Amino acid sequence: MHDYLEQSFSVKFEYRVHFTSGLFDTTNTLLEDFFKERQIEGMQQKILFVLDEGVAQSHPGLVDKINAYFDHFKTVKLAENIVLVPGGEKVKNHSYYNEFLINTVNDFGIDRHSYLAAIGGGSVLDMAGLSAAVAHRGVKHIRIPTTVLSQNDSGVGVKNGVNFKNKKNFMGTFAPPVAVFNDDQFLTTLTDRDWRSGMSEAVKVALIKDAEFFNWLELHAFDLSKRDLPTMNYLIKRCAELHLQHIRSGDPFETGSARPLDFGHWSAHKLEQLTNFEVMHGEAVAMGIALDSVYSGLKGDISADEVRRIINLLINLGFDITHPMMEVHEENSPLLLGLDEFREHLGGRLTITLLTAIGKGKEVNEMDWHLVKKASEQLKALNLEKA
Amino acid sequence: MHDYLEQSFSVKFEYRVHFTSGLFDTTNTLLEDFFKERQIEGMQQKILFVLDEGVAQSHPGLVDKINAYFDHFKTVKLAENIVLVPGGEKVKNHSYYNEFLINTVNDFGIDRHSYLAAIGGGSVLDMAGLSAAVAHRGVKHIRIPTTVLSQNDSGVGVKNGVNFKNKKNFMGTFAPPVAVFNDDQFLTTLTDRDWRSGMSEAVKVALIKDAEFFNWLELHAFDLSKRDLPTMNYLIKRCAELHLQHIRSGDPFETGSARPLDFGHWSAHKLEQLTNFEVMHGEAVAMGIALDSVYSGLKGDISADEVRRIINLLINLGFDITHPMMEVHEENSPLLLGLDEFREHLGGRLTITLLTAIGKGKEVNEMDWHLVKKASEQLKALNLEKA
Repeated sequence: MHDYLEQSFSVKFEYRVHFTSGLFDTTNTLLEDFFKERQIEGMQQKILFVLDEGVAQSHPGLVDKINAYFDHFKTVKLAENIVLVPGGEKVKNHSYYNEFLINTVNDFGIDRHSYLAAIGGGSVLDMAGLSAAVAHRGVKHIRIPTTVLSQNDSGVGVKNGVNFKNKKNFMGTFAPPVAVFNDDQFLTTLTDRDWRSGMSEAVKVALIKDAEFFNWLELHAFDLSKRDLPTMNYLIKRCAELHLQHIRSGDPFETGSARPLDFGHWSAHKLEQLTNFEVMHGEAVAMGIALDSVYSGLKGDISADEVRRIINLLINLGFDITHPMMEVHEENSPLLLGLDEFREHLGGRLTITLLTAIGKGKEVNEMDWHLVKKASEQLKALNLEKA
Repeated sequence: MHDYLEQSFSVKFEYRVHFTSGLFDTTNTLLEDFFKERQIEGMQQKILFVLDEGVAQSHPGLVDKINAYFDHFKTVKLAENIVLVPGGEKVKNHSYYNEFLINTVNDFGIDRHSYLAAIGGGSVLDMAGLSAAVAHRGVKHIRIPTTVLSQNDSGVGVKNGVNFKNKKNFMGTFAPPVAVFNDDQFLTTLTDRDWRSGMSEAVKVALIKDAEFFNWLELHAFDLSKRDLPTMNYLIKRCAELHLQHIRSGDPFETGSARPLDFGHWSAHKLEQLTNFEVMHGEAVAMGIALDSVYSGLKGDISADEVRRIINLLINLGFDITHPMMEVHEENSPLLLGLDEFREHLGGRLTITLLTAIGKGKEVNEMDWHLVKKASEQLKALNLEKA
């Protein structure tokens, strides 16, 4: 007796990524309009905010502004407390924050029709997204990313996560938000490092998907490095758009093995770890892009001129193109362990994205360490030339 | 400047609910065939088992059998340890078990292409399902339910969860398994209470969806109460089928408010709590069905004859139809608090399913407590008559 029933269904996910300026000004009705559209008769929907401490420090009036906003517009009821959490990996490394937030969802009676909104960089959004995904099997999650990186990449996607025993994002889910609000006022107070490092994901996505966007980046590198806000707004919007397209046209919840968006990331993840996260993610990704671009050139997949354009763009945006820990001298150089760890992360089969042109990626299943060595040496030489 | 990008995509979920006998006999290739079909070139997929202690006690040879099975068929590699956890609410009340399981997933290197299989009653499946859903943002989860209730209802669905501060299923996700294997050999060692109590969900789903299945239940009540296994297999399969249909034709991840499958549950949940879970879920659901059926009769929505058939079926299956804590004497009788809690659980608006016929439910947004009182009195009288 072998008999079975077949289950099959699809679940549709929809959300908008909004671009605005001064989200909590009472003259700005974008957020209130969003709540009004989703109002449910006979229910008092609530909202709980979790806020990145660094953002609160850079925007001292923000908490008062949020309170004033929900005093003015009463469609959704603001939970009495705004939860402050540290930004960066710290908030993902300690389960305390996640548990505290779930507790707070319980204390304030945030139900499945109510909202948990997170304001901050990628780490705060990742942690809060997981809390929102598991409390009541999912409360409505709103993301308000405050960095270039989170506004153009991580904050607009469908993943959340926290670290576990030093393993990045070991615990998490795929759980689309109900909306993302990108407010460019948050960008004005970023440090130069934060401003810059968010741009490497734009270079990455241009390289593997959009030659025209790469040309645009070359033309506007100077304005971007000089912190021109309208130019940055365009970069963020185009990068977010390519990211959203990738999610919907591929495998949104990543049931397969391909990871094209991880171009340049195998070495970047390792470098972050080797430098104890002193090199920021975006900075490491810029170096990882440089390495795999030179490697693609050495393989003969892209031309020397294309390699030169890529390296020049990274330099013009203000990035370092290499780092002592990016150097490969022998088969067991520390950086190369990144390949093994990436293979393990993918479940045993290595898939690396390389370039066949500016704007076009391809997948390979192995890397030749001699060529990685050569690429790292060329980058070191170029770096000395630059200095 | 108010501009936005629109994201929209669908994710397809597919799995089979298999019915078999002796899943881990090496002569039974069902499980091995499943793994073979999903084998990925170049990857050694693994499997970690978590096992309900009660099941291990009732089936002393099970652990050896599982080891022998994976010694014989080597497509998937068995993790060295089988994790034993207690059954029942205990495993959902203490976050320890969930954390331990996630730790074990890490220790044994279970990746996104590997399996976490759970063998046990609904509670063990609920806890393990959550661990599987969040580790690596989801490892492949296989459910092997061992009770009538989990084989026909909770184990074949898409929810998981653990309790938090006394709130049932406060933490969880919607995460379909990759497969469910119902093995009828596990049913043979159930206590009479466990055997019986799983049948109330079948009565429930028949009442709101399938008059023909209700007729079948009436005809076979005697065989079911006498533990005839083939008859129980049919009950489980038909109930699971109606449950699967409901999920795929409705709102699989429950973004709305309707909860038709919660017929009879508002009072059942409260009764479980009032009796400190001495009354089992299935037993409480039988009493909840009795109460809301008599209530539907008093409202004039179903006939006195239909009410009689429902009560008789419950009695013939061996259920108690009421309990001292199910009695309602006044507006603030403890049971009626169940309505408020159910309203809160739904997010502020009460939605209760009642009957308009055997096989047909309808939704109402309020209950008249005078009629609930009258219904509880009638059930008490019927119960005395029966005794």
